[in-house]
Amino acid sequence: MMGFKFPKKVNIVEVGLRDGLQNIKQVLPTETKLELLNLLSSTGLTAIEVSSFVRSDKIPQLADAELLYSSIDLKKSIHYPALVPNVTGLLRAINSGVKSICVFTAVSETFNQKNINCTLEQSLYQIERICKIARQKNVQIRGYISCVFGCPYEGKIAYATTRKYAQLLLEFGCYQIALGDTIGIATPGETLKCIQQLKAEIPLTKLAMHFHNTYGQALANILVATGAGVTTFDASICGLGGCPYAQGASGNIATEDLIYMLNSLGIVTGVDLNQLLLASAFVKKILPDEIESNVVRAKLSGFDSNKPFHL
Amino acid sequence: MMGFKFPKKVNIVEVGLRDGLQNIKQVLPTETKLELLNLLSSTGLTAIEVSSFVRSDKIPQLADAELLYSSIDLKKSIHYPALVPNVTGLLRAINSGVKSICVFTAVSETFNQKNINCTLEQSLYQIERICKIARQKNVQIRGYISCVFGCPYEGKIAYATTRKYAQLLLEFGCYQIALGDTIGIATPGETLKCIQQLKAEIPLTKLAMHFHNTYGQALANILVATGAGVTTFDASICGLGGCPYAQGASGNIATEDLIYMLNSLGIVTGVDLNQLLLASAFVKKILPDEIESNVVRAKLSGFDSNKPFHL
Repeated sequence: MMGFKFPKKVNIVEVGLRDGLQNIKQVLPTETKLELLNLLSSTGLTAIEVSSFVRSDKIPQLADAELLYSSIDLKKSIHYPALVPNVTGLLRAINSGVKSICVFTAVSETFNQKNINCTLEQSLYQIERICKIARQKNVQIRGYISCVFGCPYEGKIAYATTRKYAQLLLEFGCYQIALGDTIGIATPGETLKCIQQLKAEIPLTKLAMHFHNTYGQALANILVATGAGVTTFDASICGLGGCPYAQGASGNIATEDLIYMLNSLGIVTGVDLNQLLLASAFVKKILPDEIESNVVRAKLSGFDSNKPFHL
Repeated sequence: MMGFKFPKKVNIVEVGLRDGLQNIKQVLPTETKLELLNLLSSTGLTAIEVSSFVRSDKIPQLADAELLYSSIDLKKSIHYPALVPNVTGLLRAINSGVKSICVFTAVSETFNQKNINCTLEQSLYQIERICKIARQKNVQIRGYISCVFGCPYEGKIAYATTRKYAQLLLEFGCYQIALGDTIGIATPGETLKCIQQLKAEIPLTKLAMHFHNTYGQALANILVATGAGVTTFDASICGLGGCPYAQGASGNIATEDLIYMLNSLGIVTGVDLNQLLLASAFVKKILPDEIESNVVRAKLSGFDSNKPFHL
């Protein structure tokens, strides 16, 4: 339409239960998470990140990963990946019947050291070991790379560096690499530059993008990324998930806002927005102060046409 | 860049002082508005809507239009339009030295009756009279059309209807028509459809677009609109300006967020974002609860890298 060429279909990876919840202090009961998971499973979503097998003292919110996986009402049409930081986490995940994991590193040396307490090289070595075992067990592996658009400590990092590590993770056996705008500083211009650099060596089907909305640019970033051929995006129910490294409010892009936009362009996601809003309403009930979705605010609030108003 | 063709330059009409303030109950002192106006005038903006010559009992916030215009430190490079609802308002504006006015109507019959208390036909008759006098006095006229993407009472309205009235306003002597998404329901898909319909009869240089961010789509709308050839957009400092007809939070698109996006694409606006943020900081001081700009929240808040954080 007028020079724009969008893909027919876009895949959404729902990360609210893991990325969304992990920085929220109020620990939710497992049964609440299960209720949300069931609501999300009924929307048409095909990938729902459920939890992370990290040390429970590190992220109390995600301490119930085992319990959660043993209680899920699994649907064959849905992937339920878990984040795995090391081999111990992987073994816990496999033991819980997890069929799909995510591994992660950052392109920034300092961020790795501050966030996961190891060097970039150690992190990659860890990932290589995880991938080796996971592949033997027929567990699918998705890779996350953080700080692709910049690091809170090191600032801008060349996209060629991201490309190098993305290629490495693909060689390790990841089926896809999610490029994380960890602090939400990506812009449409930078998104296009990033894609341009990466697509020179990596097929776009192997890439996903993960935007936070710190500067309000996330939907615009996704719009140009779809136009440039990327077809998988992470998103979080209600925009859950601030990043304390980023200045200001900065949730993940809200799944609702993303689907609202894609629907308008006739881009198929397979997700039923009305069904999704039932999950949103549930989140709004349990975490009323964490809602970062405009669509949720607009759709789930009262509308009073009697208020005085001036053009 | 990768199939996208953006214009080299985009014009921004800053509407915060008028559209932004008019629905805010806390009436600001004239000197506060003047301070904001001076800050805005130093940013490189070339069009700043200042006030509205409506009845002061109708919108107390804008009751100081005369005083404001008589006190402005006018810059030759800047337009300072005023909204004018009728001939009385026009005469007041002319008397205050206003060189540039805006007239307005809505494509919805019901909205006109509820909002300006006249039929669409009466509204157009009024505008024709205003335009006749304004042209004689060499006053520039910009037209606003509300509810282009839908009306809170009548729902969807055909873009052909908007096109008809836009053509009429151009015939009356308007130099440009701003298409208003009054309740903030436009999407990228609808934005493209709207432009497609209107450009069949009207040169795109004669059109501007005015988006609210109710569903978080405003920047994405502007992105596709620029890609489709529209080069003038209304925006409001700090995203000031809710619309009580719309559900949920719904400011105008924030000037800061828009410029942040356009800068990233190398699209020239002539506005210095750092200079603009001085005006934003002033707004944040006087109206701390009205800030709807992500860029302002991110840039003007503290950043604590010592907080615990997990990928």
